[in-house]
Amino acid sequence: MKPDIFARNCGSRQVVDRIGDRWSVLVVLTLADGRKRFGELAQRIEGVSQKMLTQTVRGLERDGLVTRTVHATVPPRVDYELTDLGRSLLDLVSGLEAWATTHLGEVEAARARYDARG
Amino acid sequence: MKPDIFARNCGSRQVVDRIGDRWSVLVVLTLADGRKRFGELAQRIEGVSQKMLTQTVRGLERDGLVTRTVHATVPPRVDYELTDLGRSLLDLVSGLEAWATTHLGEVEAARARYDARG
Repeated sequence: MKPDIFARNCGSRQVVDRIGDRWSVLVVLTLADGRKRFGELAQRIEGVSQKMLTQTVRGLERDGLVTRTVHATVPPRVDYELTDLGRSLLDLVSGLEAWATTHLGEVEAARARYDARG
Repeated sequence: MKPDIFARNCGSRQVVDRIGDRWSVLVVLTLADGRKRFGELAQRIEGVSQKMLTQTVRGLERDGLVTRTVHATVPPRVDYELTDLGRSLLDLVSGLEAWATTHLGEVEAARARYDARG
């Protein structure tokens, strides 16, 4: 059966939640230019908590979008990298970022008008 | 100051949450071919609760993506329609839907592998 996002229990809705999530978007964008350590992700993505970043990379790994590689060094080094499936998201995720930053002013102006209506 | 999605308090992150939200995606897609009544949205978007749909259209209206028009009929008719700003989202939102439905099988297979690792 072909996935249909309008169908009640179609898993594609969960996939939208994943790829439209702000932290997932930021992790995928950060990994666009190559593998990164956890600490590098945490540093680039301002304001993300350790817990939220852990949940996000784990979710992306579970969904097959990111690989996690543990290197047998002392201390162990852990790298995150986009999979081919993850890389196939880059255009979309860059589009989300571009729309959000380009139109932020219009959205904020609309909110101010809405809230002023009382 | 130019919006920067990596910055701690940049409002563009909230905008990503809005446009990446599954219910917003489904409402915007449903309105792609023109104005709809609340009941038509509810019918098309299987499984959405009245409460969630109300919240979603209200959020889209507040963000300037959708207009709500009340017609002075008996009973009053209420239409929802995309604004120009909302229409500027259509490519992106169609891209989210297309990615999610095209790659659902791969994501589900990745999850099954991840969960089987224990």
